[in-house]
Amino acid sequence: MKNVAYYNGKMGLQEELTIPFLDRAMFFGDGVYDATYSANRKIFEKDWHLERFYNSLKAVKIPFKLSKEELLAELQKCIDAMDSDGVCFVYWEVTRGTAPRNHLFPDVEPNLIINITESKLTDLRTPCKLITEEDTRFFHCNIKTLNLLPSVLGSQKAFEAGAKEVVFHRGERVTECAHTNVNIIKNGVYITPPLDELILPGVTRRHYISLCQKLGIPYEERVFTLDELFDADEVFITSAGTLGLAACEIDGKKVGGKATDLLRKLQKAAVEDFERETGYKANII
Amino acid sequence: MKNVAYYNGKMGLQEELTIPFLDRAMFFGDGVYDATYSANRKIFEKDWHLERFYNSLKAVKIPFKLSKEELLAELQKCIDAMDSDGVCFVYWEVTRGTAPRNHLFPDVEPNLIINITESKLTDLRTPCKLITEEDTRFFHCNIKTLNLLPSVLGSQKAFEAGAKEVVFHRGERVTECAHTNVNIIKNGVYITPPLDELILPGVTRRHYISLCQKLGIPYEERVFTLDELFDADEVFITSAGTLGLAACEIDGKKVGGKATDLLRKLQKAAVEDFERETGYKANII
Repeated sequence: MKNVAYYNGKMGLQEELTIPFLDRAMFFGDGVYDATYSANRKIFEKDWHLERFYNSLKAVKIPFKLSKEELLAELQKCIDAMDSDGVCFVYWEVTRGTAPRNHLFPDVEPNLIINITESKLTDLRTPCKLITEEDTRFFHCNIKTLNLLPSVLGSQKAFEAGAKEVVFHRGERVTECAHTNVNIIKNGVYITPPLDELILPGVTRRHYISLCQKLGIPYEERVFTLDELFDADEVFITSAGTLGLAACEIDGKKVGGKATDLLRKLQKAAVEDFERETGYKANII
Repeated sequence: MKNVAYYNGKMGLQEELTIPFLDRAMFFGDGVYDATYSANRKIFEKDWHLERFYNSLKAVKIPFKLSKEELLAELQKCIDAMDSDGVCFVYWEVTRGTAPRNHLFPDVEPNLIINITESKLTDLRTPCKLITEEDTRFFHCNIKTLNLLPSVLGSQKAFEAGAKEVVFHRGERVTECAHTNVNIIKNGVYITPPLDELILPGVTRRHYISLCQKLGIPYEERVFTLDELFDADEVFITSAGTLGLAACEIDGKKVGGKATDLLRKLQKAAVEDFERETGYKANII
């Protein structure tokens, strides 16, 4: 198949499959998701993504019955149904079920939705532009929910400004971007915001911390400010599909570019892990 | 029909109609809605609901093409298809359209969804219990979006505590409930929180202000605190289906009950307006 849509075991093309009118995603965005990439039909960093996904389910009290192994088998079934064995975006969500619209939890089974699309990893050779915007999202950003309207609006604003991403901040404190984490390097130290309800515990952020540990690069998980962002030696964003992309400009001002070697060392190590785990030559660095 | 589901002109039963897998509500909660009640197939306060709905669309930049009159005609078509001419919950939403998952706005038409269910207005004769909880929602509560997960969780928490609603507060400031506005009466004055990004501009809240003006009752739109809530002469909640329901207990503490006559005057006037506009005897007071 050229793409795969899956709903509770039923599979079809994304543009053809239909789903129940009363799925609670339709009225409340009442569900959680996770997403990563596969290549050669192998899912990258599946354990960390599954760990986070089950944390999200627990946080919003959705009693999903499948074990990690069972979910993984369904994901693999969808990936195996794809024509392409190149890079694919692997997305899955669970909603609280199908029931007449009512805020209260219904007494029904949750729905499993899977979405596989041929895709590509972000090329890391060309730095990107960013914009900044006050973070108006809720205080549950540590949970990967379907309540993403502020991220949609922020992403569109960045796009219209010719930027790749929007850096959200709560007053002076930098939090994260609409669909990536934002990190800096200063004086040889990798600095990433601490995990709390204001940011998503990014899997690639976690990957970078493990790379720092492995490579002996000092790192800090701590709050940093907009001033520190603009003054950093490097600013870069991370997500499942963006394995550490440098920014060269924020709000039209030049940033970063002062610790290229250190950033490149981290980027290379991240891409090598992707290539080792999937057996796929990424060609993005 | 015993209920009506409508999706871009197609009508069916809510439990039978299916919709596209790629509707953006499924991945982002990327849409806005509004809801009111009908009786005798007449929609209550339709102008104010439509005004708010088009404000919501504008706030999230969804280019919905139907005029108010055209939308109203579709709503009426659905209401007319119902078996019941009693009280119905009339719900409609517009999502940003159907397109492969991507945060950026797609170049497609928005989707119109309508949902009509036989229902009833809240009986106002028995005061309710409430609980309080810190408001962790986003800063777009003035827009009626599908990003309702915190309201779902708050409503369920209230239900499990034997309460009808949860009163959200940001620190000391009372904002609103999960799906109603919260108001107080103190020293003969109706007090309701001011309109900003922290609360929904409730149609029944607006109705109550107009009733105060008509009946010569002093009112204030201003911030009030948790202390003022517990110390109020009356506490009551308003929504399209709850035309002013008194609370007798919050977090297990007795509240209100000290301005019964004034509250009853307002409630009666609100219900009379419903009855006059729909020609339906509500029998809830």
